[in-house]
Amino acid sequence: MSSSFGSAFRICTWGESHGVGVGVVIDGCPARVPLTREMIQAELDRRRPGQSDIVTPRNEADSVEILSGVLDGLTLGTPIALSVRNKDHRSTAYDEMQHTYRPSHADYCYDAKYGIRAWAGGGRASARETIGRVAAGAVARAVVRTLCPQLEVVAWVQQVHTILCPTPAAEVSAAAVEGNIVRTADAATAGQMAAAIRAARSAGDSLGGIVACTVRNCPVGLGDPVFDKLEATLGHAMLSIPACKGFEIGSGFAAPQFRGSEHNDPFYMDGARVRTRTNNSGGIQGGISNGEDINMRLAFKPTATLMVEQETVNDAHQPATLRGKGRHDACVLPRAVPVVESMVWLVLCDHLLRQRAASL
Amino acid sequence: MSSSFGSAFRICTWGESHGVGVGVVIDGCPARVPLTREMIQAELDRRRPGQSDIVTPRNEADSVEILSGVLDGLTLGTPIALSVRNKDHRSTAYDEMQHTYRPSHADYCYDAKYGIRAWAGGGRASARETIGRVAAGAVARAVVRTLCPQLEVVAWVQQVHTILCPTPAAEVSAAAVEGNIVRTADAATAGQMAAAIRAARSAGDSLGGIVACTVRNCPVGLGDPVFDKLEATLGHAMLSIPACKGFEIGSGFAAPQFRGSEHNDPFYMDGARVRTRTNNSGGIQGGISNGEDINMRLAFKPTATLMVEQETVNDAHQPATLRGKGRHDACVLPRAVPVVESMVWLVLCDHLLRQRAASL
Amino acid sequence: MSSSFGSAFRICTWGESHGVGVGVVIDGCPARVPLTREMIQAELDRRRPGQSDIVTPRNEADSVEILSGVLDGLTLGTPIALSVRNKDHRSTAYDEMQHTYRPSHADYCYDAKYGIRAWAGGGRASARETIGRVAAGAVARAVVRTLCPQLEVVAWVQQVHTILCPTPAAEVSAAAVEGNIVRTADAATAGQMAAAIRAARSAGDSLGGIVACTVRNCPVGLGDPVFDKLEATLGHAMLSIPACKGFEIGSGFAAPQFRGSEHNDPFYMDGARVRTRTNNSGGIQGGISNGEDINMRLAFKPTATLMVEQETVNDAHQPATLRGKGRHDACVLPRAVPVVESMVWLVLCDHLLRQRAASL
Amino acid sequence: MSSSFGSAFRICTWGESHGVGVGVVIDGCPARVPLTREMIQAELDRRRPGQSDIVTPRNEADSVEILSGVLDGLTLGTPIALSVRNKDHRSTAYDEMQHTYRPSHADYCYDAKYGIRAWAGGGRASARETIGRVAAGAVARAVVRTLCPQLEVVAWVQQVHTILCPTPAAEVSAAAVEGNIVRTADAATAGQMAAAIRAARSAGDSLGGIVACTVRNCPVGLGDPVFDKLEATLGHAMLSIPACKGFEIGSGFAAPQFRGSEHNDPFYMDGARVRTRTNNSGGIQGGISNGEDINMRLAFKPTATLMVEQETVNDAHQPATLRGKGRHDACVLPRAVPVVESMVWLVLCDHLLRQRAASL
Repeated sequence: MSSSFGSAFRICTWGESHGVGVGVVIDGCPARVPLTREMIQAELDRRRPGQSDIVTPRNEADSVEILSGVLDGLTLGTPIALSVRNKDHRSTAYDEMQHTYRPSHADYCYDAKYGIRAWAGGGRASARETIGRVAAGAVARAVVRTLCPQLEVVAWVQQVHTILCPTPAAEVSAAAVEGNIVRTADAATAGQMAAAIRAARSAGDSLGGIVACTVRNCPVGLGDPVFDKLEATLGHAMLSIPACKGFEIGSGFAAPQFRGSEHNDPFYMDGARVRTRTNNSGGIQGGISNGEDINMRLAFKPTATLMVEQETVNDAHQPATLRGKGRHDACVLPRAVPVVESMVWLVLCDHLLRQRAASL
Repeated sequence: MSSSFGSAFRICTWGESHGVGVGVVIDGCPARVPLTREMIQAELDRRRPGQSDIVTPRNEADSVEILSGVLDGLTLGTPIALSVRNKDHRSTAYDEMQHTYRPSHADYCYDAKYGIRAWAGGGRASARETIGRVAAGAVARAVVRTLCPQLEVVAWVQQVHTILCPTPAAEVSAAAVEGNIVRTADAATAGQMAAAIRAARSAGDSLGGIVACTVRNCPVGLGDPVFDKLEATLGHAMLSIPACKGFEIGSGFAAPQFRGSEHNDPFYMDGARVRTRTNNSGGIQGGISNGEDINMRLAFKPTATLMVEQETVNDAHQPATLRGKGRHDACVLPRAVPVVESMVWLVLCDHLLRQRAASL
Repeated sequence: MSSSFGSAFRICTWGESHGVGVGVVIDGCPARVPLTREMIQAELDRRRPGQSDIVTPRNEADSVEILSGVLDGLTLGTPIALSVRNKDHRSTAYDEMQHTYRPSHADYCYDAKYGIRAWAGGGRASARETIGRVAAGAVARAVVRTLCPQLEVVAWVQQVHTILCPTPAAEVSAAAVEGNIVRTADAATAGQMAAAIRAARSAGDSLGGIVACTVRNCPVGLGDPVFDKLEATLGHAMLSIPACKGFEIGSGFAAPQFRGSEHNDPFYMDGARVRTRTNNSGGIQGGISNGEDINMRLAFKPTATLMVEQETVNDAHQPATLRGKGRHDACVLPRAVPVVESMVWLVLCDHLLRQRAASL
Repeated sequence: MSSSFGSAFRICTWGESHGVGVGVVIDGCPARVPLTREMIQAELDRRRPGQSDIVTPRNEADSVEILSGVLDGLTLGTPIALSVRNKDHRSTAYDEMQHTYRPSHADYCYDAKYGIRAWAGGGRASARETIGRVAAGAVARAVVRTLCPQLEVVAWVQQVHTILCPTPAAEVSAAAVEGNIVRTADAATAGQMAAAIRAARSAGDSLGGIVACTVRNCPVGLGDPVFDKLEATLGHAMLSIPACKGFEIGSGFAAPQFRGSEHNDPFYMDGARVRTRTNNSGGIQGGISNGEDINMRLAFKPTATLMVEQETVNDAHQPATLRGKGRHDACVLPRAVPVVESMVWLVLCDHLLRQRAASL
């Protein structure tokens, strides 16, 4: 169970869905970074349940407490411990999960690996675990912004099932994304997506989609070749998000459609700045940021919890059927957006600090 | 520069394209694993240049020397150092690269990050760096096979430019893949792909494609949630391979097309074994292997080195043009296949050893 | 600020002396280890303030809460988060410390390194930080005892100022140590040591000493040469304890007094077991445990906080004087004993798990 | 087998005594540090066998080759691989060691842990392994000197058996140490020590002693509390050196002799610089360097290889006797001096780079 992530800026998340709470400890945060509880809470509010009619109605304020590492609005350079108490403790809605494996969930594999599992609400495999990521991501964001005030990370829902948002990455604004409950880039698409999510939920079914993310004004030089190329650590981070099935950078899975002469990004001088005329590289070359926008996309599968009866087996290895109960997202993407951004902040912060160590 | 990878089974690769040589040191290999130089050389021979008319003609035998860690055909439990001397030292073919940045290569970013670069042949950013990975991968394979004799890793070229290989993953055999110079899964497709590669090379152009990889007979229980989910570490590994632009597991980027009721993999009992009727999960649930085939796909961009004139800038930040010289692959995929497999062996080996540490 | 320790069994402690609380997160604990809150609390009770008249009267129950990773008395294999709330928040007793550096404390160095410091009570440099170590040590102990039920770790105060406890390591019992408030190995010496501590306290002064520790029934084979030799990781752990100035293993600093022919430990067969006739090696050879008792000693300096006036400077770099206030230990050794044992359990647990990863 | 050391500046050493060679790979060295083969060779020459009549006559030039990471006298920021070929391959002098365990050597423990061992010359447990440390230490020194040109590390033999060198740490010069074959601080003591070593060797016996080391002009602020306090990582490094049995910093094991009022180091202003009137802290407070000299001492046991018959057992677990053959040091301390310094450079370099990552 590696609940730790990062090297210079290292986090360890903890907590089960229906245990006492969830949280994170950050080791390696520089001192004297401006940081308040509100900065962290604001990000948690973006991922919390119950924020709109298309997400899970689980009633959690997800109120964060700073336990250490901050004094009078500044980081101390010591570990920052952040904790969120669970309000919704063990519910009878999950009783059936104690012995029956939910299809395409972690239940069976946890049992097989650990021989024990906190079955209520999915335990450690619950999406509640991402609270620690978002809280730590808010701290990472504070560090990065202190060093690179212009750096911007914007994620948005680019696709839900078969509905695509046509807005080009360069035109997506954080304000527009936060302006609709789906967190897509324009209001019209948002309406269609929300309708599709409501329809799926009414049918007891669920939908997946694509989250896109762009990083603007990233300094040149982030990323640690060979194995910790910027796209490799971003990919690691993204593929660790529950339900993520794929990651691509720049041209991604469309790259094979190009010939080299079409795909290469010619360099040119834009005043004193080296730039590329196209950006198939997605802002990263040789594993290192080149100053162009870093564009990535993540595929999410439809939520595994369904309100329809499914074939499965139980922990006595007998055939069984299961119908989901409890409160779930019929589509995780609106709440995945802040999680994606948080993981990007964590990766960028780690590389920024590593880059400082490696530069004379 | 993190040239280190892995946690329990940890490797560090080293070497520049036109320096003295390239190699790897492995720390954490268990003792008494059968290992010979031939086992390593066989894998290096699969990635070496000059093996067919569709890959780079650079003349390198890539002969490996075991410097430590092995005695009389068994590992000692001590670090295993492996070295391959470069034969083709600094060539005048690369002189132009000293001051002019090759588009979509690492040249500019290395200069920006490090303020220095071994320009000849791409230095550390050369594909020659993957020799260390393949050599270490052969050792990882020896470890995994000792613990799981039935475990099989097979990668193949599934697509070159727009040509697709139709063979389903479950029907691809290692023998068929090694039976053609493209390393695709059937001979007919191989012919078309090879023709396309030759045509691109004649035009001074290049092609990308897709490499698919399947892991068979993987034990249940590998993978370390939360951040080191099996798909996350596989993705990290794959996206660290030069020219890789995307990674997907199971249904991948097709996942959004499904509804949850279509995407979930129902469990059933196959004798004493828990299995799933479909495998959209790609053999991994909750970040842990479930015993089904682990299916993944990687997108590769077309080779950046072209024999046609391209717009660029030089290290004095002046506009320039550049036409590739030297010996290059017009399509890296045939030689990428053993690199992909090696990275999979490294990930599996690391997780196997970690799993042993975590199990009472 | 690396508040993280360990590799396979990895902990991260957090918390400031007068902040919200202190605690620890453990990543890498195997599943299904019997663990209760009482097992942890019992160890914390051994280090808590106010337990006798010779330690600080700070009034803290140091009541631990398990926030995650344990279900119905068994570990889950997920991170174990443990938290202790501080009761004694910011006290006026420490106001002077805000701007004046206490001699031989961390105050000046923290300011110089971080540019900020949680001055109240020493902040992160307070001995309160060791609560996280002791809590994690109790978990490590539970893991080790599950794997090696006979393994025993006993530390004791061997010296206070110039008073020595004559009991040989092999004859020290945990019961005897817990039977007196000094935690030395016999009652008579305990009386003398307690008297010396009381006298020093009355004079506003403080005393140091030696803590010895022995590990019995350690399995052969623990320790990871080259750099993570068992004595090297033990030394690292011990020298990280506040006020520790020296560490020795086996013959230690007496080793130079011997000739090789006197120092070597001859091997002999004790039934089926390979043993050594003497134990100058201290139970470790080549960095690996050999099955004999592991004997180590740690030197502790006298407490830096004194109730007499001392010369110093302030954070405006002006000369100043300072007289300690607040509640302090005139001798830390009685409360250091459980901290030393905890660090030994952490080191042994980490090596045990690493050894399992490395063995086929 | 963790042959890796360091965090930001990370090394991995490899090689067996009588294998192909020994060496090291360094990952994390900053770019553009002036580095030549001669700088590394000069340090290796200080530790090589055969340099005087009081060390082992094994005939090894220990000539280093830079395999990667350096171009035209500057580091590239890529891994630096350094290799030394063994000249003295398997000798019949060691045949007896194949099945019989040398007392107080690593032989038995390696067999017990790994089930296999490169017995010739001690294999990985040979002092030859320290070649990798010294080579890497020379690189670390180059990095540190680039950042802190005034920083100086001087180690010397302070004691051989019962002969003490009286020179105070502050008066020891590198030139004086290199001016005698024992590497003690004054010529008169050197003569007595050399005589004692020769006498021990003639008797087939061996001697241990104390190596002291001082660091001058260390910047304030190095060291990473809590677990990676500067003295803790120094202690880890030192105790990983073969034959080291103890480590102390500042007052060390003499600390208990002091009362707090005698031991505390009063602060005062020396111009604009905060200094301490005494240095019982040994240059480190709260785990962080305070700018005073860092003074440490290491205890070394007498060499375990003796030319007299000793009681032991063999790998069939039968009683046996053994008399050392081959070429050995009757006292390792003269050659340990550059090893000690190298480990100090490695620790300082790692902390310097980490400090840069942690500072805004």
